[in-house]
Amino acid sequence: MDYLTGVRQKETLEISELLKAAEPGQRVKVNGAVHTIRNMGTVAFVILRKREGLLQGVCEEGTAEFELKDIKEASTIETEGILEKNEKAPNGIEIRMEKIKVLSEPADERMPLAISKWKLKTSLEAKLNYRSVSLRNIRERAKFRIQEGLTRAFRDFLYSQGFTEIHTPKIGAKGAEGGANIFKLDYFHRPAVLAQSPQFYKQMMVGVFDRVFETAPVFRAEKHNTKRHLNEYTSLDFEMGYIDGFEDIMAMETGYLQYAMKLLAKEYADEINLLGVTLPEVGQIPAVKFGEIKEAVSEKYGHKMRNPFDLEPEEELLIGQYAKEEWGSDLVFVTHYPSKKRPFYAMDDSEDTRYTLSFDLLFGGMEVTTGGQRIHDYRMLMEKIAARGMTEEGMEDYLDTFKHGMPPHGGLGIGLERLTMKLIGEDNVRETTLFPRDLSRLEP
Amino acid sequence: MDYLTGVRQKETLEISELLKAAEPGQRVKVNGAVHTIRNMGTVAFVILRKREGLLQGVCEEGTAEFELKDIKEASTIETEGILEKNEKAPNGIEIRMEKIKVLSEPADERMPLAISKWKLKTSLEAKLNYRSVSLRNIRERAKFRIQEGLTRAFRDFLYSQGFTEIHTPKIGAKGAEGGANIFKLDYFHRPAVLAQSPQFYKQMMVGVFDRVFETAPVFRAEKHNTKRHLNEYTSLDFEMGYIDGFEDIMAMETGYLQYAMKLLAKEYADEINLLGVTLPEVGQIPAVKFGEIKEAVSEKYGHKMRNPFDLEPEEELLIGQYAKEEWGSDLVFVTHYPSKKRPFYAMDDSEDTRYTLSFDLLFGGMEVTTGGQRIHDYRMLMEKIAARGMTEEGMEDYLDTFKHGMPPHGGLGIGLERLTMKLIGEDNVRETTLFPRDLSRLEP
Repeated sequence: MDYLTGVRQKETLEISELLKAAEPGQRVKVNGAVHTIRNMGTVAFVILRKREGLLQGVCEEGTAEFELKDIKEASTIETEGILEKNEKAPNGIEIRMEKIKVLSEPADERMPLAISKWKLKTSLEAKLNYRSVSLRNIRERAKFRIQEGLTRAFRDFLYSQGFTEIHTPKIGAKGAEGGANIFKLDYFHRPAVLAQSPQFYKQMMVGVFDRVFETAPVFRAEKHNTKRHLNEYTSLDFEMGYIDGFEDIMAMETGYLQYAMKLLAKEYADEINLLGVTLPEVGQIPAVKFGEIKEAVSEKYGHKMRNPFDLEPEEELLIGQYAKEEWGSDLVFVTHYPSKKRPFYAMDDSEDTRYTLSFDLLFGGMEVTTGGQRIHDYRMLMEKIAARGMTEEGMEDYLDTFKHGMPPHGGLGIGLERLTMKLIGEDNVRETTLFPRDLSRLEP
Repeated sequence: MDYLTGVRQKETLEISELLKAAEPGQRVKVNGAVHTIRNMGTVAFVILRKREGLLQGVCEEGTAEFELKDIKEASTIETEGILEKNEKAPNGIEIRMEKIKVLSEPADERMPLAISKWKLKTSLEAKLNYRSVSLRNIRERAKFRIQEGLTRAFRDFLYSQGFTEIHTPKIGAKGAEGGANIFKLDYFHRPAVLAQSPQFYKQMMVGVFDRVFETAPVFRAEKHNTKRHLNEYTSLDFEMGYIDGFEDIMAMETGYLQYAMKLLAKEYADEINLLGVTLPEVGQIPAVKFGEIKEAVSEKYGHKMRNPFDLEPEEELLIGQYAKEEWGSDLVFVTHYPSKKRPFYAMDDSEDTRYTLSFDLLFGGMEVTTGGQRIHDYRMLMEKIAARGMTEEGMEDYLDTFKHGMPPHGGLGIGLERLTMKLIGEDNVRETTLFPRDLSRLEP
């Protein structure tokens, strides 16, 4: 019998430890994947890929107690040597390698993609086909570190605001949003569906915890093959009770974005720099009514409004442009969406019931969030269901919640991959999805 | 056009604010759900349920500018009054209510369960059927606050250890664990499955980020209707590269548990007290070999060993008892599971290839974690697949990752609901699942 007593301190150092805890001239031990080897004859540079970045190893005749041919690209190694300063090397340091230990070797040295290039110049298709290789490019992987920062900020900010994290089921009897875009499955000989959103569950939990959030996958069987649609994505959802109005929800999202930009600037500066990202200003985010901005855009850019109750992708783009030009903002809340375009549970505006107390957040002219106030009164909910000619079937548990009392509440859902995409300036949501699922892609 | 500038400060106070920022005698505004009303004639106690606990309101003739009959149980209200000390009230404070504003009313005042009782005395079945009501009982909801703490600690601890959070797809072409317990679905006329675990993906990402984790749902179509099985659960997964051995993984889990117990004691003390939970000692966790502990248990308790290569639930219970009696520990790592019982990707022990470099963590005699070292060498992996008579079909992308080099690595998966269950001393995993999915339960 042995005892485990906690994390073991490793002899090998990470880049931040080399920069902070070690001195030039000191003997150090590091490990990493051999990213690339540049052989200059009497000297060779062995670039190691580590989780915090690249580290330059120098292999020189006389100093090295091994042969360069013992090291292959894509091997993982441990090496011992002397830490030295070198302004030209990544992070200004390098290791004069003395000893090595090969930890693993590739079975095939020919990599399908040139991952050590600064920019991975290949098609999106190839990047996705060779996902476990393409992400070894340090700019490619940096995107997902930033994505981590966005998720982490969401949770940390909401914890600080009294929210409770919940885990709601992804297999259920009925989809929250209805419609045709639902994946169906057989659940022990019963028909079941995959959750399109945690909507019903997070509302039910507002009656328990007041404020809840979830960061989890959602599934949409939409037959759209566009640059902005995925059939499975990560939704950052929250729902909060005791609101004074739907503005409270937009205010909470603004607070989140402010917190997130600070966290990214502080903890993810390397990745922000690597990708040359300029973080947007989120000190104040304009909010404008659906009807008003449609008219303003139509007037300013001569865009012909085809449907006063719908927002086309081109109109979203123009609204983004308008917000940038008129208010200097990359982000804009569009409020009071038409009731027809929102689900039954959306709270209609009592001043004009053709519209709802709801909003989208557009970032660079693309919707990244949908939210709003929900109906909390049982009778009002039943009336709306009846008015829409809907059936209560499969929603009994959801509806019963309201029978037993619910505070005024609302919430939102943020598409994580889209938010990441707009933040780092990509034009296809697959660029910011580890393993995208779309009409044609089910693997890897 | 308006601007949103961040979170709005509310006039209404939460319990922690009443305790810290407010003085007795001060006029305050609070909101909450009417948990219960105790009418004593000239005075009535209106207990509000708030996210941080219960708050006592006192409604007295003369002081109150409203009638008690205006307040119903299960309504949500806002009230203004004077904060006062009262040792007998929850948290030692109460509000002498002067004004009220009813925010919402229930459509049906008859609650299906007596949620204001200290212990919700009803069947598990009833609790699950009326989930959005039963969780309004403050002891019931406290379980899920503790569950939040466990998840939060997992992420925060792993961030601090250089792990990157990933989101892997739940719809795929093939299950990682194989076998019959896979949910199948139709993906745009192609056969697809729901992920049994993020295993393949997290391994693929070790070659990119070195250390990764995910906290997400997994799906198992197992036909077990036991107290410890769910068909959908939340898996806390991590995978780490550059390990010296599989002990590194157990050491990391021990570090997590130490961090989690500290976080719970600090940030979730109210819930820990509410449920009367004693947090386990995790300063050191014993680790013992599968074969050895089976024999020890058989000898000590006279348990007849039926199969030397399998561990029955009763044996797990006895091992738990043994660890408690012999080493004073609620937790015990059982190591070196038989190769037959582990998936093909498990690393066999070179000293005795009938066993693997793997482990389970038992908590109170029940498995809450499975982990181990994985095969990182392409040829070794292909040999094991061949030896098992398996096909590579559907695993091409996973296997190609190893062709292109991978560090020695391993990881684990923790069942969140089981861990919560054992921690708070429940005997059915459904007690610690918000909306369980089992053979017979697909709703709510």
